Amino acid sequence: MANVQTCFSPALFPLFNAENSIVVVIDVLRATSAICTAFEHGVQKLIPVATVEEALAYKKNGFMAGAERDGKVSDGFEFGNSPYSYMNEKIKGKTIVLSTTNGTKAIHAAKHSYKVIIGSFINFNAVVDFLGNYGKDVVLLCAGWKDRFNMEDSLFAGAVVRELMQKYNFTTDCDSSIAMSKLFTTAESDLYTFLDSSSHRLRLRRLELEQDIKYCLKPNQSKIIPILEGNYLVKLV
Amino acid sequence: MANVQTCFSPALFPLFNAENSIVVVIDVLRATSAICTAFEHGVQKLIPVATVEEALAYKKNGFMAGAERDGKVSDGFEFGNSPYSYMNEKIKGKTIVLSTTNGTKAIHAAKHSYKVIIGSFINFNAVVDFLGNYGKDVVLLCAGWKDRFNMEDSLFAGAVVRELMQKYNFTTDCDSSIAMSKLFTTAESDLYTFLDSSSHRLRLRRLELEQDIKYCLKPNQSKIIPILEGNYLVKLV
Repeated sequence: MANVQTCFSPALFPLFNAENSIVVVIDVLRATSAICTAFEHGVQKLIPVATVEEALAYKKNGFMAGAERDGKVSDGFEFGNSPYSYMNEKIKGKTIVLSTTNGTKAIHAAKHSYKVIIGSFINFNAVVDFLGNYGKDVVLLCAGWKDRFNMEDSLFAGAVVRELMQKYNFTTDCDSSIAMSKLFTTAESDLYTFLDSSSHRLRLRRLELEQDIKYCLKPNQSKIIPILEGNYLVKLV
Repeated sequence: MANVQTCFSPALFPLFNAENSIVVVIDVLRATSAICTAFEHGVQKLIPVATVEEALAYKKNGFMAGAERDGKVSDGFEFGNSPYSYMNEKIKGKTIVLSTTNGTKAIHAAKHSYKVIIGSFINFNAVVDFLGNYGKDVVLLCAGWKDRFNMEDSLFAGAVVRELMQKYNFTTDCDSSIAMSKLFTTAESDLYTFLDSSSHRLRLRRLELEQDIKYCLKPNQSKIIPILEGNYLVKLV
């Protein structure tokens, strides 16, 4: 039987021995929600890079490139990690480059795993069904905030855990999975209000991104699963 | 206003900048429950050491010494971290040495903080009131299991967070504190059952330690707060 574990921080990921697991990278507000949105709007490849400097180097070589640090678009870039900036005809069929505070770092931490896919509420059911049907062990990697636990990524992990255990008979021997599936059950009837006092929500509110938050918490807007192939993300077919 | 934060793993503790905070080390099953019990039964000093070898060296020099690894008493020691082994006239007025899988490691991780105290359900109210009246920032350091999140330490942290916020007007900007205070509210009416499926509970059940678990979850059996002074723990007066 397949097992699901939840890792609250990229800093703890080496403890999980994920070489033979499918890793789901989660950065609900907003990197992985933005990445799912970009694929839904026709982007062909997305290159996640760890540093703003790398993103800038790609941009100088003619790529479309985005970068975000501390919730804001970095200087010199057209877009950061607001999903709305990817709802744009211009990205259709294109390769884009992206660097974000937490999300792209988590993708890099996971890259030696069996497979790395991108999860968010945007593609929730697609992710659950893919993992459930594949039947391999799973590690849910929360990007967190600067290596610390965050609420929205962990709650998303809890939602995935619950579905995998209930619908696909997954097991877990991991307290973080159990804690978060129980907490998600408390939170699910009104995620938006539940997250009201969370640290990142307050950070984004200061930046006036309520519209982004509402969008990122709305499940199943896309059936596409972005998957890492070598150094770039493509649409899983 | 004072702030309370929760750290789920000794591996994440360097992110918390706790130099000016009171750190509460938490290892509910069973190291910090055993330490509180030892002081309640009259131990004078307790020297927490990181390795079994160090504990053995003290023992050879005539100290009473205990060591536990993976839930069992280490070879060559009279006691590990079962609280019941400290309910003993022999320890009264003595200095004892202890090394455990997670708890003593967490104490060492915290030792450059403003103050380090020992928390467990055994001395719950005493810890909350001390922190509340002191009014300094607090970091709740969960010993976890081999650097991973565990349920019982984190729920204890949630209980402390809730009390500090409700009774002493503490604030928090930390999602782990918010998540755990909400989860504790779900769990508190029957902690024993709530922990039924947790990983460490199952580990201890295999070792037939149900009696220990029940004891460790029973709040307010002692008013003593063990505090770190240099390299050893003494009773806070």
